[in-house]
Amino acid sequence: MEKRLKATIAYDGTNFSGYQVQPNQRTVQEELEKVLTKMHKGIKVNVTASGRTDAKVHATGQVIHFDTSLDIPLESYRKALNVQLPTDVRIKVMEEVPEDFHARYKVVSKRYRYIWSCEAIQSPFRRFYVTPTNGIRPDIKKMIEAAQHIIGTYDFSCFCAANTSVKDKVRTVTLLEFEWHQDELHMVIEGNGFLYNMVRIIAGTLWEVGTGKRNPEQLTEIIASMNRGNAGKTAPAQGLYLEKVSY
Amino acid sequence: MEKRLKATIAYDGTNFSGYQVQPNQRTVQEELEKVLTKMHKGIKVNVTASGRTDAKVHATGQVIHFDTSLDIPLESYRKALNVQLPTDVRIKVMEEVPEDFHARYKVVSKRYRYIWSCEAIQSPFRRFYVTPTNGIRPDIKKMIEAAQHIIGTYDFSCFCAANTSVKDKVRTVTLLEFEWHQDELHMVIEGNGFLYNMVRIIAGTLWEVGTGKRNPEQLTEIIASMNRGNAGKTAPAQGLYLEKVSY
Repeated sequence: MEKRLKATIAYDGTNFSGYQVQPNQRTVQEELEKVLTKMHKGIKVNVTASGRTDAKVHATGQVIHFDTSLDIPLESYRKALNVQLPTDVRIKVMEEVPEDFHARYKVVSKRYRYIWSCEAIQSPFRRFYVTPTNGIRPDIKKMIEAAQHIIGTYDFSCFCAANTSVKDKVRTVTLLEFEWHQDELHMVIEGNGFLYNMVRIIAGTLWEVGTGKRNPEQLTEIIASMNRGNAGKTAPAQGLYLEKVSY
Repeated sequence: MEKRLKATIAYDGTNFSGYQVQPNQRTVQEELEKVLTKMHKGIKVNVTASGRTDAKVHATGQVIHFDTSLDIPLESYRKALNVQLPTDVRIKVMEEVPEDFHARYKVVSKRYRYIWSCEAIQSPFRRFYVTPTNGIRPDIKKMIEAAQHIIGTYDFSCFCAANTSVKDKVRTVTLLEFEWHQDELHMVIEGNGFLYNMVRIIAGTLWEVGTGKRNPEQLTEIIASMNRGNAGKTAPAQGLYLEKVSY
């Protein structure tokens, strides 16, 4: 009897060429499928994620699903996977789900976190896990003000990397907040879906607001223009975390 | 005019074969000397540290000294070094010191920190920075009780790796404490000097006390025996941090 399993996973994106399988690259999907296929005695197991993440992007709550014929209690299954997986990927939770569950198509919302470290001297221990600002501390009041123009339902073409095939660029951002954690600034964003590089372009644009290069009010025009060229730079991958996927 | 500079440095030990120069290995000392020698137009600059650290051992407060002929304000000097150094080594503080200052011979005390992560599922982001316990949480009351037998002045041969040339193994441990930081257990130890692998052997021995393999009272006999074979296993390098050197 085949059953469908859902797993919530974490990974350190530093040494991966992103989530999705690519020839001759180390990817999270490949590591997962390799271990699962081995557990199924060589019968290929396909893993589907809520979406891909780019090289160096991290996850604390990515969700995947796959079908399995193995009859192992869930907790033992999870432990067996973690024993065989490299330590930069961890299975946090495993659940059996109805066979119509789909990690990608059934997504209701996603939450991402973007972290800048504003320490004057970058900690060597955080070098792969935050975006350093060389001690610059932005004005988060302005970033919060600008964020209010992004919350809502819009065509977010302005925040979408040019090389995408997606046609419908209307998405809803339901939450966009900033928090200081000592010297680290966290941006938390939630929405029903995100375009390619959307979180990193929003982070980069709001960073420019926080450092005085743009005014908060400009966000309205940037979004209305539907032109990627009017938004800010794409913030570096290493500060980004996929934190939660809701179904 | 030559002057002597003291620097407090941090490094992520993960990708280093330890602090001290070794042929065909990447070491912290080599990275420092390479950058300083370049800044001195090829004239070799020798760097002296408070002591070596092993492969994978970290530092948040290692101290070094070197002599320089360059007439650069200290803060600019520090920044110039950080620009050229790899991001896994950072110069935190630089000070001019009298020419009789010596990073190794003038040490009054050192503080180390040892970190175990007792999370049931090891965070992929902490995999190089803590020693995982696979969810085991030790009895720290017993570890604290055992620690009282170590605080003081003793011949610590029992906590010294066999392959050492040091004759006098009498050292004074002035502080040995345990702290929970959420799921991470920290051991903080301070003393006037430490023998080779001493902190890791103490950590490994107290871990065995905390997990019920030994009794706290046994520490008295272990120390009195002056026999390495009677102490516990050497705890892994990746959980160890050189935190402070006092002069």
